[in-house]
Amino acid sequence: MSARPIPEATVQRLPVYLRMLLDLADRSTTTVSSEALASSVGVNPAKIRKDLSFLGSYGTRGVGYDVDYLIHQISRALGLTHDWSTAIVGLGNLGQALANYGGFAERGFRIAALLDVDPDLVGQTVAGHEVLHVDELDRVVKEEEIAIGVLTVPERRAQEVADRLVAAGVTSILNFAPSLLSVPEHVSLRKVDLSIELQVLTFYEQRRQAEQALGLREHADAAADADAAASGQEPEPT
Amino acid sequence: MSARPIPEATVQRLPVYLRMLLDLADRSTTTVSSEALASSVGVNPAKIRKDLSFLGSYGTRGVGYDVDYLIHQISRALGLTHDWSTAIVGLGNLGQALANYGGFAERGFRIAALLDVDPDLVGQTVAGHEVLHVDELDRVVKEEEIAIGVLTVPERRAQEVADRLVAAGVTSILNFAPSLLSVPEHVSLRKVDLSIELQVLTFYEQRRQAEQALGLREHADAAADADAAASGQEPEPT
Repeated sequence: MSARPIPEATVQRLPVYLRMLLDLADRSTTTVSSEALASSVGVNPAKIRKDLSFLGSYGTRGVGYDVDYLIHQISRALGLTHDWSTAIVGLGNLGQALANYGGFAERGFRIAALLDVDPDLVGQTVAGHEVLHVDELDRVVKEEEIAIGVLTVPERRAQEVADRLVAAGVTSILNFAPSLLSVPEHVSLRKVDLSIELQVLTFYEQRRQAEQALGLREHADAAADADAAASGQEPEPT
Repeated sequence: MSARPIPEATVQRLPVYLRMLLDLADRSTTTVSSEALASSVGVNPAKIRKDLSFLGSYGTRGVGYDVDYLIHQISRALGLTHDWSTAIVGLGNLGQALANYGGFAERGFRIAALLDVDPDLVGQTVAGHEVLHVDELDRVVKEEEIAIGVLTVPERRAQEVADRLVAAGVTSILNFAPSLLSVPEHVSLRKVDLSIELQVLTFYEQRRQAEQALGLREHADAAADADAAASGQEPEPT
C-alpha cells in the first residue's frame, strides 16, 4: 500500500471505480484510459488520476491503466483481498435477499451468521445457514471473528440491535434501516439508501420530459410558421 | 432551476447531499455550513459550494445553508417534487423488500405495478398491490404512465426483461441484477451494487486492524523496553 494516507472522499470513490473495472474485465477489456473511466463513473479524469495515484497507480501515457492490475490494487487498498466474516441481523425480505446476494461473496464478504428474533425464522435455513436467535450474537461474533454486521431489521429495532452488535465486538455496521443510529467513535457506520440511484434516474427522466415538451413546442411553432407562410403572413413572434 | 446545465458528477452527488440534509432535518438542524456538510459526505467544502451553486444556492456567509430550503432545491433539481410511477419486475426477496421499502414513497417514487412470471406469485398481493404477469407490461406501462422500471429478476433474465421494459416505453431502468445490460441510447440505466458501502467499511476495518496490530507491537516493544530497563540492559533495536 501507498505510504500516503488515502483521503476519505477517495475511499468512497474506489468501490465505484472497482465496479466499473469489473464490468470492463467482464467485457474482456484489458486497458482503460482515465478519460474512459471518468465518463462511465461521472468524475473528471484528473480526479481519477489523482485518486489512483494514492494507490501508487499512474497508468501508462497513451495506453491508460491495466484493468486487471488496477482491480487488484483497488481490491487490496479496500481490504477485499481477504475474506471478511459478516453477520446479517434481520432475515425479512431484505435480509434474505442479501444473504442470497452473489455480489457479497464475490467481493470477499463471507456470510458467517444470520440472526433474527422471530421464532418462525430461528432454526430455518436461509442461503445454506441456520438462522440463529439474536441472543447467540456474543458467542457467534467471537467464534466466527465477525467484524462486520449488516442491519436489516425494522427501523424501530435498529438502534437496539446496533447496540448489541457493538457490545458483542462488531466494529463495522452497514445499516439498511432508514433510522439514524448512534455508535461509539471506534465503530464505523454506513447507511445504505436504496433510493439514491433512483434519484439520479429521475434527474435525467425529468430533463428528457422537459426536452420532449420543448420539442413538441418547437414542432408546434414550426407548424404555426408554416401555416403563416402559406397564408402569406409574417408569423407572430412567440 | 438554474440556467447552467448541471454536470453529471454533480447530479450523482446531489442525492447524497439530500440524504445528509434529510438526516439533519430529522435532527431538527435548521442551518448547515458547507464544511459540516462536507465532513459528513466526504467531499471537500469548495466542491459542495460549487455543486450547490448550479442550483442557484449560495448559502449565507457565517451562517451556511438553510437546510429545508436546500432540501427543496435539490429535490426540485432531481425531479423529486412530483411523483414518479415505478414498476418493479421480479418479486423475489429483493423485489418484495423494495416494494415494501418506505424510502421509495418518501422520495416520490410511487409503486404503480409489480410484475413477475412465477405462477405462484402472479395474483398474490405484495405491499398492497396485486402482482401482475409480465405479459401485462405493455398495458400497465401505458395505463399508469410508468417511466421507471426497477429490475430485480435473476441475472440470466435481466436483459430479456430490460428489452421488454424498453419496448413497453420505459425510459429509465434501475438494475439490481449483477448483469451488464444493453439499452438504447435514449434509455437511462443505473446499476445498484449492494456491496459498495460494505467495501468502504472494509477499508476502515482493515486500517483499524492494522493500527491495532501496530498498537500491540508497540505495546510489546514498550514491555520489552521495560523488561530491559528492569534488567539494566539496553533494549534491542526492533
